[in-house]
Amino acid sequence: MTNKDARTPASTQNPTETSEAAEAGKSIGWHKAYVEGSRPDLQVPVRQVHLTNGQSVTLYDTSGPYTDPLVDTDVRRGLAPLRENWIVARGDTEEYAGRPVRPEDDGIKHTSPRGGLRNLDAVFPGRPRLPRRGHGGKAVTQLAYARRGEITPEMEFVALRENVSPEVVREEIAAGRAVLPANVNHPEIEPMIIGKRFLVKVNANIGNSAVTSSIEEEVEKMTWATRWGADTVMDLSTGRNIHTTREWVLRNSPVPIGTVPLYQALEKVDGKAEELTWEIYKDTVIEQAEQGVDYMTVHAGVRLAYVPLTANRKTGIVSRGGSIMAAWCLAHHKESFLYEHFEELCEILAAYDVTYSLGDGLRPGSIADANDEAQFAELRTLGELNRIAKRHDVQTMIEGPGHVPMHKIKENIDLQQEICEEAPFYTLGPLTTDVAPAYDHITSGIGAAMIAWWGTAMLCYVTPKEHLGLPNRDDVKTGVITYKIAAHAADLAKGHPGAQEWDDALSDARFEFRWEDQFNLALDPDTAREFHDETLPAEPAKTAHFCSMCGPKFCSMKISQDIRREHGGSRTEIEEGMAQKSREFAEAGNRVYLPIAD
Amino acid sequence: MTNKDARTPASTQNPTETSEAAEAGKSIGWHKAYVEGSRPDLQVPVRQVHLTNGQSVTLYDTSGPYTDPLVDTDVRRGLAPLRENWIVARGDTEEYAGRPVRPEDDGIKHTSPRGGLRNLDAVFPGRPRLPRRGHGGKAVTQLAYARRGEITPEMEFVALRENVSPEVVREEIAAGRAVLPANVNHPEIEPMIIGKRFLVKVNANIGNSAVTSSIEEEVEKMTWATRWGADTVMDLSTGRNIHTTREWVLRNSPVPIGTVPLYQALEKVDGKAEELTWEIYKDTVIEQAEQGVDYMTVHAGVRLAYVPLTANRKTGIVSRGGSIMAAWCLAHHKESFLYEHFEELCEILAAYDVTYSLGDGLRPGSIADANDEAQFAELRTLGELNRIAKRHDVQTMIEGPGHVPMHKIKENIDLQQEICEEAPFYTLGPLTTDVAPAYDHITSGIGAAMIAWWGTAMLCYVTPKEHLGLPNRDDVKTGVITYKIAAHAADLAKGHPGAQEWDDALSDARFEFRWEDQFNLALDPDTAREFHDETLPAEPAKTAHFCSMCGPKFCSMKISQDIRREHGGSRTEIEEGMAQKSREFAEAGNRVYLPIAD
Repeated sequence: MTNKDARTPASTQNPTETSEAAEAGKSIGWHKAYVEGSRPDLQVPVRQVHLTNGQSVTLYDTSGPYTDPLVDTDVRRGLAPLRENWIVARGDTEEYAGRPVRPEDDGIKHTSPRGGLRNLDAVFPGRPRLPRRGHGGKAVTQLAYARRGEITPEMEFVALRENVSPEVVREEIAAGRAVLPANVNHPEIEPMIIGKRFLVKVNANIGNSAVTSSIEEEVEKMTWATRWGADTVMDLSTGRNIHTTREWVLRNSPVPIGTVPLYQALEKVDGKAEELTWEIYKDTVIEQAEQGVDYMTVHAGVRLAYVPLTANRKTGIVSRGGSIMAAWCLAHHKESFLYEHFEELCEILAAYDVTYSLGDGLRPGSIADANDEAQFAELRTLGELNRIAKRHDVQTMIEGPGHVPMHKIKENIDLQQEICEEAPFYTLGPLTTDVAPAYDHITSGIGAAMIAWWGTAMLCYVTPKEHLGLPNRDDVKTGVITYKIAAHAADLAKGHPGAQEWDDALSDARFEFRWEDQFNLALDPDTAREFHDETLPAEPAKTAHFCSMCGPKFCSMKISQDIRREHGGSRTEIEEGMAQKSREFAEAGNRVYLPIAD
Repeated sequence: MTNKDARTPASTQNPTETSEAAEAGKSIGWHKAYVEGSRPDLQVPVRQVHLTNGQSVTLYDTSGPYTDPLVDTDVRRGLAPLRENWIVARGDTEEYAGRPVRPEDDGIKHTSPRGGLRNLDAVFPGRPRLPRRGHGGKAVTQLAYARRGEITPEMEFVALRENVSPEVVREEIAAGRAVLPANVNHPEIEPMIIGKRFLVKVNANIGNSAVTSSIEEEVEKMTWATRWGADTVMDLSTGRNIHTTREWVLRNSPVPIGTVPLYQALEKVDGKAEELTWEIYKDTVIEQAEQGVDYMTVHAGVRLAYVPLTANRKTGIVSRGGSIMAAWCLAHHKESFLYEHFEELCEILAAYDVTYSLGDGLRPGSIADANDEAQFAELRTLGELNRIAKRHDVQTMIEGPGHVPMHKIKENIDLQQEICEEAPFYTLGPLTTDVAPAYDHITSGIGAAMIAWWGTAMLCYVTPKEHLGLPNRDDVKTGVITYKIAAHAADLAKGHPGAQEWDDALSDARFEFRWEDQFNLALDPDTAREFHDETLPAEPAKTAHFCSMCGPKFCSMKISQDIRREHGGSRTEIEEGMAQKSREFAEAGNRVYLPIAD
């Protein structure tokens, strides 16, 4: 099968596929296909939607091997290490024994005998592996390669995904305007890129807390989130089994995984912020880097001097990491150990290609606190840290707010782009009002679409449970879909090449009453179909030239089509016919009313 | 009880109330109260939220007498005619026999004997009434009064609701920048105003179709929509019982009701657009004006010459009214009868104070068709018609799209404001992408917030069922809440006086862990409470200083509060203490890293 709809968001290439997959896919309206790159082991996944008019549309796909019926997946074994050969072939990394896993990594030092065996329900049973790092602490980052002019297989992979040339990818990474998060210990991922020149990306947060949820649930949320379009997933676990949950998530994730190492470090000191030390933090970072975490949020911009700036805020410090570091700074009356040890941290991250996500620990948590001095003081420090990270060849993105009313959003991103030299902005919303708990996916989806239009590269989703509780699977889906809408709306507004063709294909299907195509092209085909069938469940309604909204008599699109049919067989004919009438009318004066004096 | 939170969106006045109402309200966290104007029969409803810290917050209220436990409502009787004395006292209207109701008004001319009794299940049983109109066809509109310098009780009512002076209201109406839809035959409404200087308003559409739903359902949807915050309701019924459904809705509605008379006119000619005539249309307008419809969508801008402009569109004409008029124009090869008889229509509307909502029959139905020549050609005609309507003292607003990508939204409203001399813009969304059927409340909520920030005065909601089916009660709620979010986000961005105090009150409650206050201040208290209780249902969790998201150890706001408590007893103390530390640090160099050369 060939891709007849060549210029698509995903690729201009014809995806390869097996006939079985194509047949299997056709029955459900779409199937997983692959675009092959310059080498056989470079297979870029796409979602191929088969239209009833014989055409097909190729869409970007984040769902991983789980949606490929020809791949046998098993969460107990983990995904295949797709990138392993590429990493090994570069010859700049080495395997090593690695840091031994300790019971306290899972937060159980007080409930099991010290030095004894770990007492976990669910140790990950997959293939044994040794961690890998750059020879002699060398920077093995995509940034280092890009700066040297090398186009890696990862760069070619994302170029095919984004429908741009590999050289554009390399340039954007080299300039620090884009990051390609890909820890050498996470070979399972399908590479993706985050930068304003590319499609806007969406991150979904998962993670258990001290109060609720299990490892199994978190792995399920991860696959669920990527199934619906999450480009990266952050594991923000804070309860028990942090290490093991992360291992399960990493080994099964087709997308980059982000974390906030500070959360686990705090668990290791029983939640007492003042007992945190650089050594405990560093050990945690290495632990996570060895597991394969692709990017880490580091709140190194929360400096002692900025904490007083939050004293008169309405909602103080709302970032967990920010409040922990503020508490530490005040308890010791000292500068943040993250800020002081930042260069050392860069060296660690460079050896694994862990990407920085410089956290905005002082982001506003309410409309009243938006764009205040605390936030912008920290932003200036993030600009400083961004330059330090780049000096170490560490890929870096910058986190952003939060709660910001619409009229202050542009100022926020313009300042970030200026101060951080166009490093990718990664924002949480922002929420455009505080008054709608239970609907903060919407209050923030508005802000997210706007800030992405203006240049934010990745959006961290917000679920309906924000401010109220932990999201369940359905909340994760609602959050991801809402943010895919925001991201795509921004891609359209930015004029991203090919973005509008998805809209055009769906609108064509809508106008031509190809209901099945309309469902299959929808961001959420299941719900679209379900909503239609709620009022018109019968099969003939799927080909009817109307729906339950207006009924047959009032269907504007049916009338539109009738007009075209009655007044000309083709668009050209009707246009000419109607244009003639229009000219006649124009010649006759073209108006009924006389001009009105103002 | 006094309102301790004086500067609020609703009013600076102390609402009057009875002690019973206050007691009843307290148990559920809020109650209905009234702000009295310059006369005892001028009682402006507000929602008074009682906080656990003893303060209260006053919010705008659209829910009508239904939420007042002291008012005995009965949908079979209808609401009390609040404005009747004001209308009568003006002495410029007269009661008259009115147009007899005919079976075909309810679309049953072919199924009941002609001339016989109407065969309806549910004739409205309320008090008998005669229609009223201006003496000798005189314009009895709020615009006419405003231009003469009169401040009507309706104007004073909305001034109290909006917390502005009555003179501002009069000026905005006189200038045509705002409308106060209030048909003399709809005395039941609580007056409201639509204009960019005021709070952004939200309209909810209801209405049966040929395919589904009953009178009872429509009345329920109307009360449900206003309960959640709809400022006006449009009855877009197209099936059976149109006249009677509208009568039930009007007699029970506390908000202005809008319609599209063309829909009913088309039913009268069995759905054959070409059989429509000015006479049938005019008769329908009078029928509806006598019932009390407050504003009518009139697609008089769809002129014969513009229809060819839609021939190369992706989705043709998607407005029902627009497609009906285009079909008529082409069938007769004649100019639109609505355009030709527009002055006569003005005279009718002026005699009842029906407000024009000039329909955008050629609005884009897809991203591809946004801001095209067809739309802007019609917009220029709407500008012409707006001036004609004003000459007749008819209040006028202008309808807008539709489907528009974010980067084309500002051009759209700027052009409308220029061409239509700042007449209120009333837009449907716009939807910012076509790819998410089942989530078009969100695709359009994004565009709605933006266009309202830039000056749109009223937003027509979109429900999750858009493009797929008829909304049920829950869809109506989701649509209204989403649009209230968009409207409030815009009020904040416009800097509307008092708008942010609602956010501030909620954020204060959030920071201080006053969970009950957070729920009661929420746009949707029920869902916020339900989401919280899903993970932490126990009563003590309502006063806990954390929630299930982070648990007690990771609650940033708890840590923030601890910091404030440990480092100073008050905000001032901590600020001074921390500022001192900050100064010490600054004197010591204030940085760890040396400046980096660029």
